[in-house]
Amino acid sequence: MKAIFLENGTVSVRDMPMPERPPHHALLRMRLAGICDTDLQLQRGYYGFEGVPGHEFVAEVVEAPDEALIGARVVGEINLGCGACDWCRRGMQRHCPNRTVLGIVNHPGAHAEYLTLPVENLHRVPDSMPDDVAVFTEPVAAACEILEQVHVAPTWNIAIVGDGKLGLLIAQVLRLTGANVHLLGHHAHKLALLEGTGVQTHLVHEGEDLPLPRHWADMVVEVTGNPSGFATARALVRPRGVFVLKSTFKERLDLWLADIVVDEITIVGSRCGPFDTALRLLGEGLVNVRPLIEATYPLDAGVRAYEHAATRGARKILLRPSG
Amino acid sequence: MKAIFLENGTVSVRDMPMPERPPHHALLRMRLAGICDTDLQLQRGYYGFEGVPGHEFVAEVVEAPDEALIGARVVGEINLGCGACDWCRRGMQRHCPNRTVLGIVNHPGAHAEYLTLPVENLHRVPDSMPDDVAVFTEPVAAACEILEQVHVAPTWNIAIVGDGKLGLLIAQVLRLTGANVHLLGHHAHKLALLEGTGVQTHLVHEGEDLPLPRHWADMVVEVTGNPSGFATARALVRPRGVFVLKSTFKERLDLWLADIVVDEITIVGSRCGPFDTALRLLGEGLVNVRPLIEATYPLDAGVRAYEHAATRGARKILLRPSG
Repeated sequence: MKAIFLENGTVSVRDMPMPERPPHHALLRMRLAGICDTDLQLQRGYYGFEGVPGHEFVAEVVEAPDEALIGARVVGEINLGCGACDWCRRGMQRHCPNRTVLGIVNHPGAHAEYLTLPVENLHRVPDSMPDDVAVFTEPVAAACEILEQVHVAPTWNIAIVGDGKLGLLIAQVLRLTGANVHLLGHHAHKLALLEGTGVQTHLVHEGEDLPLPRHWADMVVEVTGNPSGFATARALVRPRGVFVLKSTFKERLDLWLADIVVDEITIVGSRCGPFDTALRLLGEGLVNVRPLIEATYPLDAGVRAYEHAATRGARKILLRPSG
Repeated sequence: MKAIFLENGTVSVRDMPMPERPPHHALLRMRLAGICDTDLQLQRGYYGFEGVPGHEFVAEVVEAPDEALIGARVVGEINLGCGACDWCRRGMQRHCPNRTVLGIVNHPGAHAEYLTLPVENLHRVPDSMPDDVAVFTEPVAAACEILEQVHVAPTWNIAIVGDGKLGLLIAQVLRLTGANVHLLGHHAHKLALLEGTGVQTHLVHEGEDLPLPRHWADMVVEVTGNPSGFATARALVRPRGVFVLKSTFKERLDLWLADIVVDEITIVGSRCGPFDTALRLLGEGLVNVRPLIEATYPLDAGVRAYEHAATRGARKILLRPSG
């Protein structure tokens, strides 16, 4: 099969053996996959990853322990728990200390013609939902995770710092609460994608004054992937406010924590979220994802696809099987 | 009047003019005051403080706008709000951006024969409560603040890292929830003070293995004042756990935040708390403070008192008026 392979910071397209299917896994034929900023971070050395990347996908079940699944169109949760530890027994496979993670930690990813995942990780995609919507399930779930962790009220002022793909999804999901949601970003064409969603946007440039008053926000969401975003978010959050951290900075940060204590800030690290809810929101049209698509490449052109995804200001790049 | 004065990292005892009483303030005659680790940090340059330190006290009202207050024995909240901003109007003077803070920020402190505070900052001490119990109201309130911020369940494993004075109070307050509370500290004689409280203690030495499994705690409280305590607390808190930060490190910390995101840790900065609740807990004997007292010095001997307080392993040092 064709697959994208990441090694020493370089992606290439290779012919690889089909993945072997463990008994409780399904074999999936990829229909559409997304390139996430995490994939680009892996390329830069995050996690020392080597192998097939990719964790955003929609696929068709080709083989499965339960024949009823065969032919189903599915998306899949990316954390593979051990199934035996306390975390897994409590249904928290996402935090299993022995987990592997699709395309991130010790499990070949979705930027390939075929992949495998445990049957319990799969969620059927409603027939009415096109592939290019379903492929956003994973990042929309990550956006929903914030509302699993923080009780957000419509009274709140929320500032999202970063207009990347995840930032644009988070803005729409948080706006569902009726809160006063503002997003700060560097790219006018991305901010324009939020027109009509009720999210207020602010085009900002490095070194300029903030477009919102200091301590304006009851909650900030830092999703720039850039340490300078941390400082912006910190300036915007009010005392006793909530600072949601989505960026997984590759760098260590030099922080003065005393003011987190004095201002009684709550910092909430936030990662993967609920797929079922994300699928429902997408199905109900509550999150608008298609305008986020920049281009779709065949797997054969995976190298160009990765280059395009790494372009400053690029929206979501999708991959489809070759041929 | 006699007062302790802090200047360029040095404390001295001085004869100073009586503080002037603004119209809405009470003039207080100090009866007993505590030396807090924050006072010692001020001495080391934290906040660039110069003046009369001290924010833990019990005092008698000498002058007040309302004569009914005169003669009352009181403790006092340490944050002086401006009274006009949004924060103050919402009753959150503790976070008023224009606030002064008793003995910490632009308001002369309680390590003096006399001090002033706004009448609304004062809480009457029950007649039955001795001074050497009431003087702990401020730190007990700071311990209570954690339970204002975090919903703690009896099912939780809690690790408190640090056996300083505040750590010992926090352990007792958190134990009120019925949670499984463990405290880690370097001083056997301090850990012994928790005997009979139901708090489990662990004597630890630098470089040794942790006495509890990695990721054991649903919540950790970092109260060492030492950056190495941060790493210990981080190792103990489980994924999705709560990390309460009480230490106001003088140093900047070099942190890898990506694992806060991946493990979805919530970091809660925590400072001052509710005085009324602290007084009630002390009155009901739910927090045992007298064993925490190391020695009581007259103000005249303030220099020695500060030296004693800075001794490794010292418990609470109290100051009483001179003469």
